[in-house]
Amino acid sequence: MIQTPYLLFLGDAPDRLAAKVAQGIKDWRPENAVGQFRLPACGTTVDLQDMTLAEGLAAGAKTLVIGVANRGGVISAAWKEVLIEALAMGYDLASGLHNLLSDEADLVDAAAKHGRSLHDVRIPSVDYPIANGVKRTGKRVLAVGTDCSVGKMYTGLALDRAMRARGMKSTFRPTGQTGILITGDGVPLDAVVADFMAGAVEYLTPDNDADHWDVIEGQGSLHHVSYSGVTMALVHGGQPDALIVCHEPTREHMRGLPTYKVPEMSVIRDVALSLAKVANPDCVVIGYSINTQHMGEDEARAYLAKVEAELGLPAVDPFRFDAEPLVDALAKI
Amino acid sequence: MIQTPYLLFLGDAPDRLAAKVAQGIKDWRPENAVGQFRLPACGTTVDLQDMTLAEGLAAGAKTLVIGVANRGGVISAAWKEVLIEALAMGYDLASGLHNLLSDEADLVDAAAKHGRSLHDVRIPSVDYPIANGVKRTGKRVLAVGTDCSVGKMYTGLALDRAMRARGMKSTFRPTGQTGILITGDGVPLDAVVADFMAGAVEYLTPDNDADHWDVIEGQGSLHHVSYSGVTMALVHGGQPDALIVCHEPTREHMRGLPTYKVPEMSVIRDVALSLAKVANPDCVVIGYSINTQHMGEDEARAYLAKVEAELGLPAVDPFRFDAEPLVDALAKI
Repeated sequence: MIQTPYLLFLGDAPDRLAAKVAQGIKDWRPENAVGQFRLPACGTTVDLQDMTLAEGLAAGAKTLVIGVANRGGVISAAWKEVLIEALAMGYDLASGLHNLLSDEADLVDAAAKHGRSLHDVRIPSVDYPIANGVKRTGKRVLAVGTDCSVGKMYTGLALDRAMRARGMKSTFRPTGQTGILITGDGVPLDAVVADFMAGAVEYLTPDNDADHWDVIEGQGSLHHVSYSGVTMALVHGGQPDALIVCHEPTREHMRGLPTYKVPEMSVIRDVALSLAKVANPDCVVIGYSINTQHMGEDEARAYLAKVEAELGLPAVDPFRFDAEPLVDALAKI
Repeated sequence: MIQTPYLLFLGDAPDRLAAKVAQGIKDWRPENAVGQFRLPACGTTVDLQDMTLAEGLAAGAKTLVIGVANRGGVISAAWKEVLIEALAMGYDLASGLHNLLSDEADLVDAAAKHGRSLHDVRIPSVDYPIANGVKRTGKRVLAVGTDCSVGKMYTGLALDRAMRARGMKSTFRPTGQTGILITGDGVPLDAVVADFMAGAVEYLTPDNDADHWDVIEGQGSLHHVSYSGVTMALVHGGQPDALIVCHEPTREHMRGLPTYKVPEMSVIRDVALSLAKVANPDCVVIGYSINTQHMGEDEARAYLAKVEAELGLPAVDPFRFDAEPLVDALAKI
């Protein structure tokens, strides 16, 4: 569990895409960020107040979160200077970088010296159990995709926000690095050892109030041959009561697999539901979440209407337009 | 790659079940074992010649393989004495125990001193790639189960043996500890990090001659909620041309999951085939491998005939009776 609130370290991020972790925190958990810290070479912003480390501390920040991708997989000397100073001042550090904070001897030394924590959310910090398949109390909804990177995390975050806005009990349950940094907790499922994947998902979504929803972040796709095993563990470990099928209509092939076509939504709906029913015979598909970011507004609305007419369930872009039809469906379960 | 042939260390195994790794090597790769080494307290045998370490060396053994489960997860002082002496004499050591040889300082020291290798087959020794899904040359057959521990490894080993007896090109590709020790090579798939599971299977089954069969050891079941992600990675990473459905008819529930019924063979056939076709549209199901060990002979033969009649494909117990109908089917692909 990473201590909140954060000061967001943007470093020398050249553009908005490089700062997408910081942007995700700003978009979805603005209450978790007191401000942003930028080096002189930084070429972007997430539109939070610029703060020094001292100002961040004064505003209550507990953790300096690296909200930016680093170039060449190296934590630069310029970054190090700030990170070590932050540890000395009393910040914890949190990062989703591939190269780990805990592999940097000077950061490890500084953290030890000042009694601070280094959070590398890319690697598991828990010994997860083997899944036992026992039925848990409370309700769970899982986003399953026709492909990787089609908007499963944003779908989950949008649903969670909309449910809470209605006063429903909801917790977003991250299963990837960005999601973990946004909320401060979760399971980095792609880094879990095979035998424990489904158990890690059970651990992430324990017994809860009967009217509480866990909104589980999906990963990969049951039809993405590189990562389908991770998706499978979510479908079985998550014991979902409800599935939402996520899709990006302009994708020409599966991400990273040029010879693989993106499957039809109806195919993913059917295979995901039949597999989900193994763990929860009452599971239902409640609708479709379409990532329309590459479509004009008219085109997007026409596409959603077409999907809804053809597949017979609500089809929305919960980030661009609204998540309410999906929340309506969940509220009836 | 573990150097063969082996001397099989039976230690103080109380009974045959405790020595099942040694028994598997004896049953399936007798040419890999020059003899067995037993401590005075040993209560079983795998019917190989008893040898001292010196006699094993003289017979050509390169590796002392721990062919027995240890009690309480501790490598005892009595075992250590033999293992250290073996390293000093020039043996490598290989083990599939949960507690690792490489975690024992005295074994690590002795191996370093004598320039020998410690093989812990329970953990990966390779940095596997992420699966790329590119079509590979050669042919592959995968055993998929209705449950865990229904005979997938024995099915694969029996098929491999029968194919080679006919002069077909075949390689058994182990994905579990026992299989790796039997053949000396493979991927411990349950210990691979999630993102790399399918890539590990691709690595295990590379391009090969057009008429060569990789016989891939299956794991888990697509309907076993604890391990289905591992199975999924085999179905997609393995790119099978042929599937064999494995079943144990007397099982009352899924292994380790008392409230989960074992699925019908036809259900696993359909879900496995539809998922396998994502990676290889030409994949076919060629038959059923039934583990009849808990049935009398008449009962077993009647059951096989019934499955064959109902499901319309060959149904055999390839270990107890014969694998030929499955090999006939593979020979036609």
